[in-house]
Amino acid sequence: MIQINEHYQKLKASYLFVDIAKSVRAHQEAHPEQEVIKLGIGDVTRPLPASALEALHTAIDEMASPRTFRGYGPEQGYDFLREAIAREDYQSRGVNISAADVFVSDGSKCDTGNIQELFSPEQRVAVPDPVYPVYVDTNVMAGRTGPFQGDRYQGLTYLSGTQENGFVPPPPEEAVDLIYLCFPNNPTGATATREQLAAYVDYARKHRALILFDAAYVSFIRDPDLPHSIFEIPGAETCAVEFRSFSKTAGFTGLRCAFTVIPPTVQAWTSTGSAVALRDLWSRRQTTKFNGASYPIQRAAEAVYTARGREEVRELTDYYLENARIIRQGLAQAGFRSFGGENAPYVWVEARRPSWDLFHLLLERAGVVTTPGAGFGAAGEGFIRISGFNEREQVERAMERIQAALA
Amino acid sequence: MIQINEHYQKLKASYLFVDIAKSVRAHQEAHPEQEVIKLGIGDVTRPLPASALEALHTAIDEMASPRTFRGYGPEQGYDFLREAIAREDYQSRGVNISAADVFVSDGSKCDTGNIQELFSPEQRVAVPDPVYPVYVDTNVMAGRTGPFQGDRYQGLTYLSGTQENGFVPPPPEEAVDLIYLCFPNNPTGATATREQLAAYVDYARKHRALILFDAAYVSFIRDPDLPHSIFEIPGAETCAVEFRSFSKTAGFTGLRCAFTVIPPTVQAWTSTGSAVALRDLWSRRQTTKFNGASYPIQRAAEAVYTARGREEVRELTDYYLENARIIRQGLAQAGFRSFGGENAPYVWVEARRPSWDLFHLLLERAGVVTTPGAGFGAAGEGFIRISGFNEREQVERAMERIQAALA
Repeated sequence: MIQINEHYQKLKASYLFVDIAKSVRAHQEAHPEQEVIKLGIGDVTRPLPASALEALHTAIDEMASPRTFRGYGPEQGYDFLREAIAREDYQSRGVNISAADVFVSDGSKCDTGNIQELFSPEQRVAVPDPVYPVYVDTNVMAGRTGPFQGDRYQGLTYLSGTQENGFVPPPPEEAVDLIYLCFPNNPTGATATREQLAAYVDYARKHRALILFDAAYVSFIRDPDLPHSIFEIPGAETCAVEFRSFSKTAGFTGLRCAFTVIPPTVQAWTSTGSAVALRDLWSRRQTTKFNGASYPIQRAAEAVYTARGREEVRELTDYYLENARIIRQGLAQAGFRSFGGENAPYVWVEARRPSWDLFHLLLERAGVVTTPGAGFGAAGEGFIRISGFNEREQVERAMERIQAALA
Repeated sequence: MIQINEHYQKLKASYLFVDIAKSVRAHQEAHPEQEVIKLGIGDVTRPLPASALEALHTAIDEMASPRTFRGYGPEQGYDFLREAIAREDYQSRGVNISAADVFVSDGSKCDTGNIQELFSPEQRVAVPDPVYPVYVDTNVMAGRTGPFQGDRYQGLTYLSGTQENGFVPPPPEEAVDLIYLCFPNNPTGATATREQLAAYVDYARKHRALILFDAAYVSFIRDPDLPHSIFEIPGAETCAVEFRSFSKTAGFTGLRCAFTVIPPTVQAWTSTGSAVALRDLWSRRQTTKFNGASYPIQRAAEAVYTARGREEVRELTDYYLENARIIRQGLAQAGFRSFGGENAPYVWVEARRPSWDLFHLLLERAGVVTTPGAGFGAAGEGFIRISGFNEREQVERAMERIQAALA
């Protein structure tokens, strides 16, 4: 008899975006004259960089001739891209990462979701709260949690980001095996200093734990003192994996390209204590269950590392950061304290009421859609996330409306 | 302590293509004057259809303007593609599949590898032999097998394709829960009749088992009596999942696009006997761990379903089928019996000696690379696979060399 993986049954149905859509629809029916402005979604809106567009057209022309046609590529990604990543994202900042440590994929959602397959189902897992739900749900599916009770899964260690800790929680008190971190953070927009990350590296080395570091928003960092990579912290090369993506960097959410970095010095162990190189294990997973990212898309990603591509990425991320600045300023003028949005595209707003209440208030009075913080976890209650990913005039109009409505 | 999924340790290292590459390198060093012809690889060589190329360029132009830019798409795929698939691949042949049953992905390797996550680790699994290794390895990783002993994994049921059963093994004697099938078959090129598939559907309904039907090579079927889809068999809509790909159909191995079809009537059960719709479970898996296939690639796949696209696909697959015919004929003239290659791109050749011996003979005497059947499983011993995926003149030259060498 076909019997299911019953851990799926523990998954709390995610009603967040369904509930948001329902509220928006009801509002639009009641106010058909008003255009609703959506600042809830973490998705880019600006066109692709010209360098990426050109690289795409060129790669597609290659696919038109038998002499230059490309079929299956290496599952780990083409060397031209792995080398550009290692050189430009790491070696240029003095970080010792080589092309062989880089695994190109079609998205960080896949990579952060798939990596947990490499580990024993008994591993103890720590996740941030508020959190990108993929870290949690994929471990629920694998049986590393108990049931959902109250507002959290049993058996997970939650690292709460609060106003008191600047939304950068310290390492857990208890021993865990896998620790998910995301900086610059989604949803709070918080960033971590070298010292804060070093505390995690120390913890991981002490407990022989692994840090799963999601750096999807690294290209929004402007503060020169902030680390860009977990591998800038000495010792991390033995206890961390890093995930990066072209989605928010270069507007690739519709194209799909990302990568995972695992130095050869990161070890994991069998139950009898034999050491295994994690990079080899991930390579085995990827070569068995993945067939490489699309060739033209990898060429587009490569183009992002040229001098011109880097300049275009800078302009693109500057644009969204300016949106975030306008949001922070607009919210301040409307009397709200907010966080993040300086080295990150997200602004985390103190709601001073339940987060769904502020969501409804902004929707009904200003026709602006945001995301209730409670949707990202228990510690997100009392906040909303406003996204800088939008067209400038939409952001400006939204802030004018909010100020007028709440004045 | 970071503890690994120890089932990975059971995986037999796959030396097949490494060993082939090593032999080829040694041959090339010994015979630097001779160009080696590679008929071992199952990868396309012909350019993309013009309709797909045009659709790609158009979709990329859309990404250049904020008015037409596309970010994240639906994880299940865009409706334009899901509807084209349901209409052209299924409804046009009288099969009741709707767009909601179609899940677009970046590859059948991913889909056939990921689907097993939905099931209990205790499920009993049957796989064909010879076999596409992904079905086996992903179940080993999930702990559904014992160790590799002799030439097979303990705890798996192997369905041996032999000359006696025309490489279409009958359903197993014992009860299993998951059954992988692939027709037209890789590596044997065998096809299954309606009656043969009906026997599997009967078996699956009787045992409440699930058929995982890989139809990656469906576009090579020319015999009008052969079923194209498992869903042409009455009853399959309650006990089968179908995987299809644009890789071999339209030359998308470098672009990456495929899809999985699950009718809403396919059920699975919890340990306490509650029924769950498998389509919902897969949807949950895909929305949690996948972010949709690349937008321009989905547009290219859509273009393949236009009248012009269908004609181009027909020409493309005709080209490879003619290669397969030339291979069959060439092998016959050299005194070999061969199978497949009529509604499939692969020719399965009786080696009349251990399969590695014929591999070495053809490499050394004719400079032609093939794939030893033993690399696909114990039942592949005594055969080699020759692939029709190549340029015509390469295939013709390879056959001339084989005939001259073995005359």
